[in-house]
Amino acid sequence: MSLFADLLSTVFERRYRGATEPDRKGRSIEELCADLISNAGEVSGTELARLILDRYAAMEWEEKRAFFAYLTTSQGIDTAATRTALDTYEAGPNKASYRALMDLVEPPRQELARRLNQVPGATGQLVEMRADLLRMTDKNPEFAMLDLDLRHLFASWFNRGFLVLRPISWETPAEILEKIIVYEAVHAIHSWDDLRRRLQPEDRRCFAFFHPSMPSEPLIFVEVALTKGISTSIQDLLADGRAPMAARAADTAVFYSISNCQAGLAGISFGNSLIKQVVADLSRELPGLKTFVTLSPIPGLTRWLEKEGRPLPGDPTAQRQLSAHYLTNAKRPDGGPVDPVARFHLGNGARVHAVHAGADTSANGLRQSGGVMVNYLYDLAQITQNHERFATAGTVAASPEVRALASAVSLQDA
Amino acid sequence: MSLFADLLSTVFERRYRGATEPDRKGRSIEELCADLISNAGEVSGTELARLILDRYAAMEWEEKRAFFAYLTTSQGIDTAATRTALDTYEAGPNKASYRALMDLVEPPRQELARRLNQVPGATGQLVEMRADLLRMTDKNPEFAMLDLDLRHLFASWFNRGFLVLRPISWETPAEILEKIIVYEAVHAIHSWDDLRRRLQPEDRRCFAFFHPSMPSEPLIFVEVALTKGISTSIQDLLADGRAPMAARAADTAVFYSISNCQAGLAGISFGNSLIKQVVADLSRELPGLKTFVTLSPIPGLTRWLEKEGRPLPGDPTAQRQLSAHYLTNAKRPDGGPVDPVARFHLGNGARVHAVHAGADTSANGLRQSGGVMVNYLYDLAQITQNHERFATAGTVAASPEVRALASAVSLQDA
Amino acid sequence: MSLFADLLSTVFERRYRGATEPDRKGRSIEELCADLISNAGEVSGTELARLILDRYAAMEWEEKRAFFAYLTTSQGIDTAATRTALDTYEAGPNKASYRALMDLVEPPRQELARRLNQVPGATGQLVEMRADLLRMTDKNPEFAMLDLDLRHLFASWFNRGFLVLRPISWETPAEILEKIIVYEAVHAIHSWDDLRRRLQPEDRRCFAFFHPSMPSEPLIFVEVALTKGISTSIQDLLADGRAPMAARAADTAVFYSISNCQAGLAGISFGNSLIKQVVADLSRELPGLKTFVTLSPIPGLTRWLEKEGRPLPGDPTAQRQLSAHYLTNAKRPDGGPVDPVARFHLGNGARVHAVHAGADTSANGLRQSGGVMVNYLYDLAQITQNHERFATAGTVAASPEVRALASAVSLQDA
Amino acid sequence: MSLFADLLSTVFERRYRGATEPDRKGRSIEELCADLISNAGEVSGTELARLILDRYAAMEWEEKRAFFAYLTTSQGIDTAATRTALDTYEAGPNKASYRALMDLVEPPRQELARRLNQVPGATGQLVEMRADLLRMTDKNPEFAMLDLDLRHLFASWFNRGFLVLRPISWETPAEILEKIIVYEAVHAIHSWDDLRRRLQPEDRRCFAFFHPSMPSEPLIFVEVALTKGISTSIQDLLADGRAPMAARAADTAVFYSISNCQAGLAGISFGNSLIKQVVADLSRELPGLKTFVTLSPIPGLTRWLEKEGRPLPGDPTAQRQLSAHYLTNAKRPDGGPVDPVARFHLGNGARVHAVHAGADTSANGLRQSGGVMVNYLYDLAQITQNHERFATAGTVAASPEVRALASAVSLQDA
Repeated sequence: MSLFADLLSTVFERRYRGATEPDRKGRSIEELCADLISNAGEVSGTELARLILDRYAAMEWEEKRAFFAYLTTSQGIDTAATRTALDTYEAGPNKASYRALMDLVEPPRQELARRLNQVPGATGQLVEMRADLLRMTDKNPEFAMLDLDLRHLFASWFNRGFLVLRPISWETPAEILEKIIVYEAVHAIHSWDDLRRRLQPEDRRCFAFFHPSMPSEPLIFVEVALTKGISTSIQDLLADGRAPMAARAADTAVFYSISNCQAGLAGISFGNSLIKQVVADLSRELPGLKTFVTLSPIPGLTRWLEKEGRPLPGDPTAQRQLSAHYLTNAKRPDGGPVDPVARFHLGNGARVHAVHAGADTSANGLRQSGGVMVNYLYDLAQITQNHERFATAGTVAASPEVRALASAVSLQDA
Repeated sequence: MSLFADLLSTVFERRYRGATEPDRKGRSIEELCADLISNAGEVSGTELARLILDRYAAMEWEEKRAFFAYLTTSQGIDTAATRTALDTYEAGPNKASYRALMDLVEPPRQELARRLNQVPGATGQLVEMRADLLRMTDKNPEFAMLDLDLRHLFASWFNRGFLVLRPISWETPAEILEKIIVYEAVHAIHSWDDLRRRLQPEDRRCFAFFHPSMPSEPLIFVEVALTKGISTSIQDLLADGRAPMAARAADTAVFYSISNCQAGLAGISFGNSLIKQVVADLSRELPGLKTFVTLSPIPGLTRWLEKEGRPLPGDPTAQRQLSAHYLTNAKRPDGGPVDPVARFHLGNGARVHAVHAGADTSANGLRQSGGVMVNYLYDLAQITQNHERFATAGTVAASPEVRALASAVSLQDA
Repeated sequence: MSLFADLLSTVFERRYRGATEPDRKGRSIEELCADLISNAGEVSGTELARLILDRYAAMEWEEKRAFFAYLTTSQGIDTAATRTALDTYEAGPNKASYRALMDLVEPPRQELARRLNQVPGATGQLVEMRADLLRMTDKNPEFAMLDLDLRHLFASWFNRGFLVLRPISWETPAEILEKIIVYEAVHAIHSWDDLRRRLQPEDRRCFAFFHPSMPSEPLIFVEVALTKGISTSIQDLLADGRAPMAARAADTAVFYSISNCQAGLAGISFGNSLIKQVVADLSRELPGLKTFVTLSPIPGLTRWLEKEGRPLPGDPTAQRQLSAHYLTNAKRPDGGPVDPVARFHLGNGARVHAVHAGADTSANGLRQSGGVMVNYLYDLAQITQNHERFATAGTVAASPEVRALASAVSLQDA
Repeated sequence: MSLFADLLSTVFERRYRGATEPDRKGRSIEELCADLISNAGEVSGTELARLILDRYAAMEWEEKRAFFAYLTTSQGIDTAATRTALDTYEAGPNKASYRALMDLVEPPRQELARRLNQVPGATGQLVEMRADLLRMTDKNPEFAMLDLDLRHLFASWFNRGFLVLRPISWETPAEILEKIIVYEAVHAIHSWDDLRRRLQPEDRRCFAFFHPSMPSEPLIFVEVALTKGISTSIQDLLADGRAPMAARAADTAVFYSISNCQAGLAGISFGNSLIKQVVADLSRELPGLKTFVTLSPIPGLTRWLEKEGRPLPGDPTAQRQLSAHYLTNAKRPDGGPVDPVARFHLGNGARVHAVHAGADTSANGLRQSGGVMVNYLYDLAQITQNHERFATAGTVAASPEVRALASAVSLQDA
């Protein structure tokens, strides 16, 4: 009935908007925003909000820039008033002084965003708006403040407690599947047949987080292969024509691709929750699964070696030694691992489990890491401890095997 | 599968918690909260959050009071640091200074609440927590600050854009229906049969707002009677044994009961959105509906008359004149109507449409208003204008008939 | 949207029926049936079918009797034509002769019922029609032929492969729950609270078969208690205020009530499939369940004892001996057990597992069996063998304990 | 959870089958069928049925032929016994004699098919079985009798009252969409992009009938274009890059493709019901739709002209005249139209509304009808009358315009 509903809704709204629209046609988006914020009640809020979102959607790039500039400069906090309120509150912290302070320390643009979000479907449009904003922050660094406000709001709205995990399968609506094709960021999906190979066999799974207000927009998804033993080659995993195995015969789940979908949700982390939830769900479904690992790229390896003036050797063992060394010892000034994927999984409490030469023979795989890939292991009994050591002391958890490989390089260097 | 899922989930969590629980058993809820806030990553956040919520759920009243006291005093804002950050920001407003300021002006207890909300089902528990808190604010007025923080968060989480309108019917799960019985606040539902009379006939409707994270908890609901002409007696509307009419023959929808369900969401207004949405949906479904009115109590009438030293006369016409006068002219010091139900509907843009003597002959109806009830009219073409005049100038919209009744009293008084 | 759909559907149909109705108003239901059958195509079939069903629904009892008489006499098979077709077929069995024969051996009233069933919702109405018919067969034994035809059709339509098993819980729509209250045939449900006690605790379950075309009408349902050990008292099982146990701590599932819901589906057996399916589903959900038993009434005990001129003794051991004897040895002329509940469960492959005195102290329980109840055990490893021995040789499967009890009586008698 | 369910179900069944399988391994499918039929009870029926279906699924072509031969010869009716029963019934028609007769006139293979259908998922497998059978009837005409039995059963199981109409859209599971691609029989769908063009734009619709027991298998589907005025070219309708129109601006719904999906349901007609239902649903959704027409091929035109020794002229007007003549006047010996598509739509009560030259310029379109296509009009006010005249007198309903075109040929011929 959705099209029908849409139609009627339009008819209804036209009738309903009748009284209010004429007055607003001549007003600028900035004036409309001021109306929306100032309007004490909420009676015409939805109409106003819809009008603003429609206006925004029709804007050219430079108009959007001007709109963001307006939000940055005119909808920020009033420092003088805030200071006074802070003094009053400090002198006598009570309901009234606290409320006055709280009203001032939050910039009006946050309330504006909340009021825009009254409109059904607005959440996705606001996420899009932030994606636009982020594309401009290089040129307009002052927009970073507005961005912090949106990010703050979105972190609250997209709180883990509000997200829904859904399996993505060959029974999923095409509308969502085509987005999976587009959003896949690690190993490109080349066609619907390629997609089907990752979804339909009983030893392949995919899961995504959704938000109830954006039901056909995945936020992040992970692709999983169920295997006997740990995979050491992404090409083998994705091979066309391979024979699927019975899911219940698998002992290992390999997370071979994790993709964030929404540019407008940058900086809001879902990956750790997603992996833990999928580990939990697969454990329930398939008690035979004993090992949960990734098969991950090492995107920074070649670049780092170049910086170190050290070419990647051709010998697979030497490749593995250098990779192990890089993953466990190469650190940024802030003490974190150089490799971004390592940072993510180690931060989640995983450990560096094994490295494999010749594991990704695609052009991209060879370019970024000479074809070497790595398994990060998610061991539920160790995950908290690993995470805490990593978070507090920067300790990188690694298997004895990986340690041994890495120490070969250290000894050599010494 | 839900029970099964629960079971397995418990098994799984026991396995999973194994490593972490022992260390935490000895820690107080305050220490756990500090852990949860300080924990930079989110790896063990869910476990911690669940532990805190479980502890809270098992607390006695005085333990809860102590916990709220802790949140009030130890998780508030740091005014000295905030003032410094404010100075820095004012001197150079940029990403770093803004972020530093924003981090300080939000009390840590807000982030604590967001982290607690990671746990599936936590949203409802946090709403319950605020309900507990509100029961204590009389005795502990300092808790009002904590309450403002929760209310601020909840206003964001329960934003109109996240709510879902669902019809409540005889096909609704019993689990939800029994809550409707409990939550009905205007005209008590005495039994399942009484409930059925309000849901099953085709000329009776009920709608509720739900939040996706609390799928079996209505937030607010409205009961509607479809009628020919405007009802003038609640007893007639609810009479057992009355003959239902065909829904498509109705020309009027009477909103005869609106009940908020969640004490913990006090101060977050859904009523206006609910009525407007229901008007919209019913308009679509039944194009024959031309009039949308309430049949509302006048809860403050008797009390006000007493204060005025004016007994309610026995004569129906005189009763109606005094009621019209009270609804349109009796004001609070702040300029708003004395009557709380009038404040609500006039604030929504409705107008006082008609008053009826003998309309509620129940004990409660006679006590609060001598049996007089009132229709507020929701006319979509007038609603915005009414609302704006009411919000800005305190103008009470009323029908000519009601005006005439009211002026009879004014003349008399003059 | 269902009401809306209904409304529009009515509008649409009025428009649509326009052309056809006038001609049909004057026609009798018999003429309409003849039209429906004769109509080679199906174009106006739905309209005609609806008209016939509407007419039927509005009939008085005697009109229905006349209608059934018409179907019995005028819509039966043509024996002369059948004999000719049989000869032709026997002389040359081929497509044409077989089709001709098949067309004749099926009475037209079967095709009539299929055509009536084109109308959405008709299946339930046809089931109701048979319920009416069955109420008349005592007085009109000739209707048994029409009944055989309906039963034949229904056995095909309500084939196990078309049924859907659904849990009945406190989350089930009230509309269905109120039918559970009405249809419960073994231990009456006295109120919604009583119902809740059988559905909501985690150690209580209920399951029903539904047909997709009658989605709010249960066909048969079973109530289950999860327990530690085998229950020996129905009053204990149903006690108000008892403390529920954790479902996963249970080792036994007790089927304490099975009720057929549709009088019009008499003679079409669902019970065996239902029990087997529920045993399978519960086994999956709760692997701790090791024992699946009923706690069943012995409805024929007192009556049989009276016939035997043997009063039920007061001593519990003697009661149990006589009950064991009755269940295992008392046979009908056709070799089947006298007790109808025993016939059902033994026919399903269950065995008589234990008998308990004082197990049903309700007025009804005392009247029918002096309060004695019986457990029938469903042991999946034995079920087929038990069933086959019972079906072929009339052998009653029983536990050694029950055998011993029974033999005490035999010895005594001998 | 389906895979999980499968897994557990298998585990469970292994446990359960334990007792029964050994005995059956050595038995032939014919013996198993005899067991299934003879087994008075239903206890082990499901297991037996599953075993038979599994055996069948693993058979080679010639084994299937042997199995059908067995069903044809050994599971047919017993004519001698039937004659005796017929005599008995004729002599005394009562419940016993009628039941005996009915039991004999239905060949045992019908009951066999019903018992096979106990297994979840069996319905689809039985439909497949009939598809196999139909592929053999040319070589084995004696199988036509078995086919008549299956068709008779399926007509009952796939009764209109049991079917569910579902829209097929871009939100439909990929699993179903890929079947739409495969089953499209009129204008081939070349890719997922081509499919999307027929589903996603708001002026394109698709609807299919499903049976609840085969939820991912469409039975028949129709593709619809919403247009302003009646389409005269299929290539225009399906053009890539065309601009969609607003659905509510359309005044016409064009049914441009209807495809049956299940070879095993041949001879069971859904098309008429589907079209009528879709007309009804679209009328409700889009009250602006005034005209419901097909844009149909004329598959028999070229062939008929060849037989008539009359080449299709190049002149569009002459083409249209001949097409109109063919559609309205070319009859088979039985009086029905020569053209199969014409037979279908005229049989449904549609009329020949307009013919268009150059309407299908595809290779196939040019070959079968020189590119001419036809609109059949579904006018709800005329449909019953048209159908009845067609069914009784063979009258072809046509628009005055088509009549005029056709009469040009008749005059010419005369």
